[in-house]
Amino acid sequence: MKMIIDKLFDRVEHYGNVCIGLDTATDYIPEAIKAEKENVEDTLFEFNRRIIEATKDITACYKVQIAYYEAQGLKGLQAYARTVSYIRELKIPVIGDVKRGDIAKTAQMYAKAHFSGDFEVDAITVNPYLGTDTLEPYYDYLRQGKAIFVLLKTSNPGSGTVQNILSKEGKTVYETLGEKLIDEGKQHMGNNGFSSICTVVGCTHAKEGKRLRQQMPNTFFLIPGYGAQGGKAQDLTGYLMNGNGGIVNSSRGIILAYRRNNPDNLPFDEASRRAAIKMRDRINQAVRRNG
Amino acid sequence: MKMIIDKLFDRVEHYGNVCIGLDTATDYIPEAIKAEKENVEDTLFEFNRRIIEATKDITACYKVQIAYYEAQGLKGLQAYARTVSYIRELKIPVIGDVKRGDIAKTAQMYAKAHFSGDFEVDAITVNPYLGTDTLEPYYDYLRQGKAIFVLLKTSNPGSGTVQNILSKEGKTVYETLGEKLIDEGKQHMGNNGFSSICTVVGCTHAKEGKRLRQQMPNTFFLIPGYGAQGGKAQDLTGYLMNGNGGIVNSSRGIILAYRRNNPDNLPFDEASRRAAIKMRDRINQAVRRNG
Repeated sequence: MKMIIDKLFDRVEHYGNVCIGLDTATDYIPEAIKAEKENVEDTLFEFNRRIIEATKDITACYKVQIAYYEAQGLKGLQAYARTVSYIRELKIPVIGDVKRGDIAKTAQMYAKAHFSGDFEVDAITVNPYLGTDTLEPYYDYLRQGKAIFVLLKTSNPGSGTVQNILSKEGKTVYETLGEKLIDEGKQHMGNNGFSSICTVVGCTHAKEGKRLRQQMPNTFFLIPGYGAQGGKAQDLTGYLMNGNGGIVNSSRGIILAYRRNNPDNLPFDEASRRAAIKMRDRINQAVRRNG
Repeated sequence: MKMIIDKLFDRVEHYGNVCIGLDTATDYIPEAIKAEKENVEDTLFEFNRRIIEATKDITACYKVQIAYYEAQGLKGLQAYARTVSYIRELKIPVIGDVKRGDIAKTAQMYAKAHFSGDFEVDAITVNPYLGTDTLEPYYDYLRQGKAIFVLLKTSNPGSGTVQNILSKEGKTVYETLGEKLIDEGKQHMGNNGFSSICTVVGCTHAKEGKRLRQQMPNTFFLIPGYGAQGGKAQDLTGYLMNGNGGIVNSSRGIILAYRRNNPDNLPFDEASRRAAIKMRDRINQAVRRNG
């Protein structure tokens, strides 16, 4: 069994750092697809499938934001299930961006929900507000090769409300949490120096990202906030290590490229491919060994 | 339109403080129900339906923990949808215990998911780790009468990892968050002195609960941790105000009463009714105006 953290490392080596976020709102979908498909489930899935087929050799992995599918009810979640299953069949890592967080037996249920059955993915995002004890139910699955991305410092403007509260000892909440994850992370190391306990660190806070990287050299980062939210390629140098150790998410910048930046009037899937290539190359230029 | 916070207040006045948690794991369900129903969706729903019918005049509201249904995949979520819809048709408040938390447009999607469509409930629990700006997408729904319960101090042993980090100013993270909620809460007041921005405060931390109550006299509390987790009726005096201002959740203590404390060998629904009555009366005795 190959651990997903090792697959991610390899994919980054071969395909670059781009993580494509399939945050598919129904109003992002071209009319042609809506006309072709009968219901919201098929429409969402077909849009995703075509983006995936157009970008699968450009991306390290996909991240599917479950909220967009939950918002469409049961049919939406059927599209979510089909999307993550499709990506897994292609042997490409898929992250369920579910940000679940709960205690004891309830956390076990979330682990079961997203690491087996209809919604099975390779990794999920988790929210640590309820305490690091609430992460324990996921560890059994890490031993089976899965990974978790624990929210530390998110990309939104108000992320500091809680995350940046400064303790008496002069540490932020996210730094204190980070320290706790390092110890546990040592129990779940892959073969390339990174643990299956990964973190989310937004690229809109470059100084803080750099400090976290220094504090956590064995932790793989999921880095949201690139592009639309203001994160820039040159800021990423501080987040990565020889170009690896992290994936950089873009959602609307890629899946909506056909509306936003499409002088040649490409079909949506080709426009997403072009946007992904551009992002990959820009990041490569800024952060990777040039040679 | 009657605001849900006012309905909750009225239900507590008339029926007491019990909130029944429908955290229905498949292995909680009696064999007889499993034999009668063909699939997991019908089995989960039938168990819930019979508990609801047996307890609807004993409880202030129901809380449905979505993780238990997510763990059963799409069929499980169909049972969740049917359960919350059934409770709403009875005009009893229902809380979706979803603990969602995400930023910007994603938070809008979660709000849409749980305040409309297949999964519509009257109130949801939300996680504030990403910052108070991430709560804003819910406010439109509060103006339509819905409510949110923001996690402050949870009932689990490790809840202090983040929640109790003490700031330079000598305040815990949950107190700092609580202060921020008070201001916003004033914009969403019901007719009985409580806001539609409610909080979750576990009854396993009695001193902290009492301090939060003093700090937040206009905030309605969802109080988990009663019974199995160690919370006691007499501790609740500090959390409530003249017996109102909060609901006390019990899940396994009620839905598994038929296995745990059932000397008369009652059917599961009758055993749950008896457990709910006992809990209601015990709380009444401890905290309410007596007579």
